[in-house]
Amino acid sequence: MTEPPFTDALAAFAAAPIQSAETARDVLSLSLLDWCAVAIAGRQEPVARVIRSLAEEEGGAPQAHAIGMTARVPTRMAALVNGTISHALDYDDTHFAHIGHPSVAVIPAALALGERVSASGRAIQEAALIGVEASVRAGLWLGRGHYQAGFHQTATAGAIGAGLAAGRLLGLDKGALADVIGLLGTRASGLKSQFGTMGKPYNAGIAAANGVEAALLVAHGFAPRRAGLEDAQGFGKTHHGSGDFGALEGLGQSWLFEQVSHKFHACCHGLHAALEAMADLLPVDPDGISEIRIETHPRWLTVCNIAAPRTGLEAKFSYAHVMALAALGHDTARLESFTEALARDPQVAALRGKVRVVPDQALPETAARVLISVNGVAQEAHHDLLTAMPLASRAAKVRAKAVALLGADRVAALHALINENAAPGEIGAALCKL
Amino acid sequence: MTEPPFTDALAAFAAAPIQSAETARDVLSLSLLDWCAVAIAGRQEPVARVIRSLAEEEGGAPQAHAIGMTARVPTRMAALVNGTISHALDYDDTHFAHIGHPSVAVIPAALALGERVSASGRAIQEAALIGVEASVRAGLWLGRGHYQAGFHQTATAGAIGAGLAAGRLLGLDKGALADVIGLLGTRASGLKSQFGTMGKPYNAGIAAANGVEAALLVAHGFAPRRAGLEDAQGFGKTHHGSGDFGALEGLGQSWLFEQVSHKFHACCHGLHAALEAMADLLPVDPDGISEIRIETHPRWLTVCNIAAPRTGLEAKFSYAHVMALAALGHDTARLESFTEALARDPQVAALRGKVRVVPDQALPETAARVLISVNGVAQEAHHDLLTAMPLASRAAKVRAKAVALLGADRVAALHALINENAAPGEIGAALCKL
Repeated sequence: MTEPPFTDALAAFAAAPIQSAETARDVLSLSLLDWCAVAIAGRQEPVARVIRSLAEEEGGAPQAHAIGMTARVPTRMAALVNGTISHALDYDDTHFAHIGHPSVAVIPAALALGERVSASGRAIQEAALIGVEASVRAGLWLGRGHYQAGFHQTATAGAIGAGLAAGRLLGLDKGALADVIGLLGTRASGLKSQFGTMGKPYNAGIAAANGVEAALLVAHGFAPRRAGLEDAQGFGKTHHGSGDFGALEGLGQSWLFEQVSHKFHACCHGLHAALEAMADLLPVDPDGISEIRIETHPRWLTVCNIAAPRTGLEAKFSYAHVMALAALGHDTARLESFTEALARDPQVAALRGKVRVVPDQALPETAARVLISVNGVAQEAHHDLLTAMPLASRAAKVRAKAVALLGADRVAALHALINENAAPGEIGAALCKL
Repeated sequence: MTEPPFTDALAAFAAAPIQSAETARDVLSLSLLDWCAVAIAGRQEPVARVIRSLAEEEGGAPQAHAIGMTARVPTRMAALVNGTISHALDYDDTHFAHIGHPSVAVIPAALALGERVSASGRAIQEAALIGVEASVRAGLWLGRGHYQAGFHQTATAGAIGAGLAAGRLLGLDKGALADVIGLLGTRASGLKSQFGTMGKPYNAGIAAANGVEAALLVAHGFAPRRAGLEDAQGFGKTHHGSGDFGALEGLGQSWLFEQVSHKFHACCHGLHAALEAMADLLPVDPDGISEIRIETHPRWLTVCNIAAPRTGLEAKFSYAHVMALAALGHDTARLESFTEALARDPQVAALRGKVRVVPDQALPETAARVLISVNGVAQEAHHDLLTAMPLASRAAKVRAKAVALLGADRVAALHALINENAAPGEIGAALCKL
């Protein structure tokens, strides 16, 4: 029997030792800190309470920590709970190559399975790195058509990454890891039509849980169709996948995951490029501002251009508002910067009136230009979210965001655990205690 | 906000009292007996052992019985285990209107949830009836294109039936039941590419488990996109669904489920029409047979026409072999009739040589004609699996099949439980003890 080629390559990658991945490892540990921060910050969201209710009533073997729970739960449930909760704020990392959120699907699977099998901290970080990279590759193999048709790659490609991370920690060999992928062909699911509802973070949870379930079943002897992703009526063909083998280019040598984007502002992603450009111009004297002009891709004008927001939620979709917040020194990384009180604040409202948003078809969707006139002096800055950031700057920004969410003490504790390759059980315990 | 119309109609049906369903109720209780029999008979299959391993290591609240386990397990797990095990032999009921196996997805969900909430026997049979009917309707709404593209309706439409059965037992109102359907839009999955592997019965298990999970989450306050099945990028459109509203015709008044087919032979479905026709000609003097001629739709000639099978599995795909078995008085309902020993038996082999299989394009795929010459006398019989069978005959055949699988004592015990509307916990206990 011929091996399904994409599945086989991905399984071989997941079974092999990691090589030449220094930067990728560093980015993974940043993503792990970022993931911990957004997960802890999201633990009281309504969807977090709902998913914990399911976990509480099921109970079960105390195998892994679930955020916000005192009792540990079975691995599969920990993955479901932590995946869902960590995506509740939609403030986790994003990979634009395939458009997905790698960490929320993969890290919960790696942590839960790692805690279950008492893996080392290094082993779970390696498994997570394999998993996120595999999810990006699977997303590219499925292609843009898959996403455009309506599938949420975070859930679909994410399940494959989660399954490989879990399978690696279970010590599965290449053939068994290929079976995990094949089995996920029939188990993976998740649609974008849930965006704007609790269903979106749940999609991350089911990715993590499906991955863990498939890996555990294969470890117990489940024999699926190994070509379940790739055969004539496999997941790819049935789910509008392109089957692009370019997705395998450089696999094992270069790490697409390094290009993952972290979110540094607790608002719509369409506002981030403008906020980053603005950051280069700060601080300014807000009283001296005569105009803030933003040039952006026209698509965002129907997405996040509410001129005079009245609620905290509306504030997250307003160029004028976030520019006013930034100019006035509010930290847009903090959840608390997006409140009804600030939406109604007269100083903010006055400054909003000085913001002008101008469409520019020539700009990429990921870029923006900001021109600001302060006390008669004009300044200008440009930012593209795809521009690679030096690792040290990125680390500083991720850490500052985490501090904005959790405060310095908790972040120092998390940072120490991650840097010292703490065991997954210790990280899990910290997620619940901090 | 406009309600999604198919979802709304199905939810209204699932929330309402059942009316004018005398025959449908009778067929459901036959299917329940049939389901119990094939589930118990399948409990030592390899996939049954694998799925129980997952359940055993997770443990959890003792909410519902799982076949082959002494400890009870959480509802969602019981649905996964029992759904998988009951489809392990592929000997359960089939509905040809949408091509799916309604009982293996829905009954495990209704039994598990019913046991959990201490529902009455009548309530779980009603919930199961609602669920199987809804799964057939959902299958028709998705349409033949969905199946042809590669989706296993047992898993996809089945999850909706399972979710509605579970939701009804949780006392959800119409709006909440619609939310269950919407949430399943992002959770349901299952592909035909797993046919021939453990993945096929697993698809029934995930249908049942997904339905239970969605119903429990909605009961806990999960607020999904209600139109998750129907909107522009909902499950239907993304999964090659036709969105045929003819699927709703007569909903609540007439019961498509009444046309469900029970399998009466432990072999490939393509052989069943010929075996039924042959049954009308039995008993015969095997020594006097000069020829058995079978006329069948040509598609089956590449599916189940092995001339001289050598194994028990090959024997399940051989016209010649099953006709020989029937003529010699072997009960083709029994699993034990399909062995390597019988495949090698000289008397069976000799009789196989007298069988001739002739394609006839004019016959429906569900029909066959058998002509037999015994001691110079020719006899002929025709059977179409879609021909409605009088309820009494059907009941007798289902019971005879169950006896062939389990023996008379166990079937009498199951029959009594079902007929006396035993509580789901009692049925669950019987599944484990008998």
